[in-house]
Amino acid sequence: MDAVTKIHKEVQSILSDSRGSHDLDHTERVLKLALHIGEKEGADLTIITLAALLHDIGRNCEDDSNGKICHAEKGAELAKTLLEKHGFDQVMIEKITHCIKTHRFRNNKHPQSIEAKVLFDADKLDSIGAVGIGRAFLFAGEVGAILHNKDSDIPNTKPYTKDDSAYREYMLKLRYVKQRIMTDEGKRLAESRHEFMVEFFNRLNREVDGEI
Amino acid sequence: MDAVTKIHKEVQSILSDSRGSHDLDHTERVLKLALHIGEKEGADLTIITLAALLHDIGRNCEDDSNGKICHAEKGAELAKTLLEKHGFDQVMIEKITHCIKTHRFRNNKHPQSIEAKVLFDADKLDSIGAVGIGRAFLFAGEVGAILHNKDSDIPNTKPYTKDDSAYREYMLKLRYVKQRIMTDEGKRLAESRHEFMVEFFNRLNREVDGEI
Repeated sequence: MDAVTKIHKEVQSILSDSRGSHDLDHTERVLKLALHIGEKEGADLTIITLAALLHDIGRNCEDDSNGKICHAEKGAELAKTLLEKHGFDQVMIEKITHCIKTHRFRNNKHPQSIEAKVLFDADKLDSIGAVGIGRAFLFAGEVGAILHNKDSDIPNTKPYTKDDSAYREYMLKLRYVKQRIMTDEGKRLAESRHEFMVEFFNRLNREVDGEI
Repeated sequence: MDAVTKIHKEVQSILSDSRGSHDLDHTERVLKLALHIGEKEGADLTIITLAALLHDIGRNCEDDSNGKICHAEKGAELAKTLLEKHGFDQVMIEKITHCIKTHRFRNNKHPQSIEAKVLFDADKLDSIGAVGIGRAFLFAGEVGAILHNKDSDIPNTKPYTKDDSAYREYMLKLRYVKQRIMTDEGKRLAESRHEFMVEFFNRLNREVDGEI
């Protein structure tokens, strides 16, 4: 078994108790998307595979610290240790941890390498389109939120309450994701995912009003 | 305040602690849809309004009895008492409770009057289309289910477990809803909601595979 396969199995074990919107399935989807984009963009696919697999291994630390620990920073630290254990050299480790450190939406650290841009895009693309819609409603269900209320005072609605909704997430965040995408292939995928998502929420409003 | 407005307020109070896929919002959406369809079908809109408002007031009894009590039967009983209190005559009460008794998908009692068919359609239409997709994921989130697994053994997946999913609900139930719709206007609405739902789940599968 090569080192990448071993690390893949380790990540499956690390993320096996992760639930909700950043579970193992999210990581596997991001990996597939990152490989698809990375191939089109001529990026190093080993760096991409390892960065995608390891990008969310710091999530539990962020959740357990109530957000005080940044999962991107912590994930890069944990990844460094894990990659050293598997015999990767410092140059390679630096390239992979750069991707992990900079994949976060709200971080001040921005992706510089093509591999980091690919991981950033793959992670963001998983929050829009049909997958993004499903994740937004699933999360709403997890926190006991309502199905929909297009007339609510969105900017002042509290997250993680029953007045939260997938529509709130869409209005405040998801509809702007497309603008942040960095690579050409990422932009192409984002365009189609964004359009479908806009169509979905427009349709939802009209269905709820009993029009269609 | 007329009797219908008074009953509307009473229903808002009865359903105020209902959560999830059969909350007050569901009843309000069914009311809007039933009025839209009822108007096109030339049905009695007072019967429709009262039947739609009252159709799920037996839900809590079904939930509390772990499904032993049928919410449609119980709802009709509760509705009878409530309508008598507000001075409706027995002929009218019989027409309204017939709608409530027969609105359930799995019931042996089938809608006979046009008003009962309209309520049946409105209730079923709220489980497909963009609303149906949102409700399926919201419910999955509430029971701690996963986002998606198209390769799972759908017929043998257990509901209300983490291996449950919105896709399971779609494969086993939602994609067949269209065939049960009874009125012409209901069929027209179902066609468009069904098509959008099929497009959504096809797209979800392709996105999850990293293709689009």
